[in-house]
Amino acid sequence: MDLKTYLSDKRMIVDEALEKIFPHIEDPSADIVTAMNHSLFAGGKRLRPILCMAGAEAVGGEGRAVLPVACALELIHTYSLIHDDLPIMDDDDMRRGKPTNHKVFGEALALLAGDGLLTEAFHAMALLDTSGGVNPLALLKVIALVAEAVGYRGMVGGQVVDIQSEGKDVDFPLVEFIHAHKTGALLTVSIASGAILGGGDDNQVKALTEYGRKIGLAFQIADDILDIEGDSEEMGKSLGGDVEKKKITYPLVIGLERSKAIQKEIIDQALETLKSFNRSADPLRQIAVYIIERKK
Amino acid sequence: MDLKTYLSDKRMIVDEALEKIFPHIEDPSADIVTAMNHSLFAGGKRLRPILCMAGAEAVGGEGRAVLPVACALELIHTYSLIHDDLPIMDDDDMRRGKPTNHKVFGEALALLAGDGLLTEAFHAMALLDTSGGVNPLALLKVIALVAEAVGYRGMVGGQVVDIQSEGKDVDFPLVEFIHAHKTGALLTVSIASGAILGGGDDNQVKALTEYGRKIGLAFQIADDILDIEGDSEEMGKSLGGDVEKKKITYPLVIGLERSKAIQKEIIDQALETLKSFNRSADPLRQIAVYIIERKK
Repeated sequence: MDLKTYLSDKRMIVDEALEKIFPHIEDPSADIVTAMNHSLFAGGKRLRPILCMAGAEAVGGEGRAVLPVACALELIHTYSLIHDDLPIMDDDDMRRGKPTNHKVFGEALALLAGDGLLTEAFHAMALLDTSGGVNPLALLKVIALVAEAVGYRGMVGGQVVDIQSEGKDVDFPLVEFIHAHKTGALLTVSIASGAILGGGDDNQVKALTEYGRKIGLAFQIADDILDIEGDSEEMGKSLGGDVEKKKITYPLVIGLERSKAIQKEIIDQALETLKSFNRSADPLRQIAVYIIERKK
Repeated sequence: MDLKTYLSDKRMIVDEALEKIFPHIEDPSADIVTAMNHSLFAGGKRLRPILCMAGAEAVGGEGRAVLPVACALELIHTYSLIHDDLPIMDDDDMRRGKPTNHKVFGEALALLAGDGLLTEAFHAMALLDTSGGVNPLALLKVIALVAEAVGYRGMVGGQVVDIQSEGKDVDFPLVEFIHAHKTGALLTVSIASGAILGGGDDNQVKALTEYGRKIGLAFQIADDILDIEGDSEEMGKSLGGDVEKKKITYPLVIGLERSKAIQKEIIDQALETLKSFNRSADPLRQIAVYIIERKK
């Protein structure tokens, strides 16, 4: 298979589905739809939805059947970026080559756009059509797992510690905590939810969850490295911000070279977790490698 | 029945359940649990959870069986207050007689506490034990309805218009839009979700949803009136803030006397929607009257 074609095909499916989520409304509150769409269609890679569909396919399920959950994961990712960019958080002006949400719509509307995206994610998940073969109890389990992964036990918890640690001396366990929670939890649950909804058995779900943990960690290390070595034009944002803001990163805590070495080890471990899967897990195999080789 | 005893019994049940939601954690992110609990246990009336349980009871269901959803509604209400109080929104220092969340924990943690509460609400709902008789499909429907009621089509949409209308001339349809969305939608879905999970038939759910719309509207008019006529000590916040901030209120748009008259009419209509229900709807009958007679 060709990963580039796979990713762009899947991305198109996700984009089409995302476009239907927030229809044009005539309400007095129409501005929030504009604000939510601004960030939702700002050129995201759709990695989380793609991982969800690939997770379903790896266990023999159909990617399209899990599309509402796949889209929900992108809504959640987008909400987290909008809130993270706010002046009271990271105070970022640019994201994916565009002005951040609050720069265009003001802080109040950006806050509410984030709230709206997070809420809509659960709306989309709960509306997944279970008449197509997805077990309603499996769907409820996935909703609970996603909420756990992105709430105070997961992503939000990681952001809390990230913010509280800025400018302080931190040790390796803490940088691992931040990364596993802030970025890793959502990536992990993206694959796990696909595997569960796709009808995977317990062993398959366990293996794919472990794969998710590994690539989630590798993804964040790669992000940290890109902030130092990446091309700012290609990335669509100014780089070096982590160092300037004394953000907690792998290169900061264990150095650039060791970060690169660890990153490769983790990807090898991720590939190992897939060894009992047949060729339907090939996209996941190639995505693991892509994650540390990407330029943006 | 004695409403005071009913409300305090139910409130105790809700408080006990809420206390179990955020257990003490040893995580580096423990501060967010403290922040979430600060606002969750700031003396709320638990009106939304009580309406949810009363909705279940009105159709012959059991209040305790819907407790996770009832609690989720309080988590959502609390999140909305925290975000609403932020300086980038209404900029309020006091709420229920206590300093607002950001005054104690800072704006970043308050933002994240709100995000955490909203997310946890969906976690709690999805984990409701369906082995006790609640239909998993009914639960998925309720999750979708709650998300719809509090997202951009509902509460968040109302906040958008509220913020955008401050200081402007608004007409009666717009004040109705704001109130129906910002406050009404969550109150309405509180009763509707109880009725659905309690096993109500379509007509019962429809009647109780209509009841919810009526008391939701009356509740907001009562709030507007209390901001003018209430006792600031009893309310635990400074009053007159609506006028000072040129907030869109019923008294502002149609005057105090007409607001009071409309409020009474609406409660009569709410009672009318309950006419086919037996005595198990008595709590809802008394709550309707309580809503406009309360002093806080």
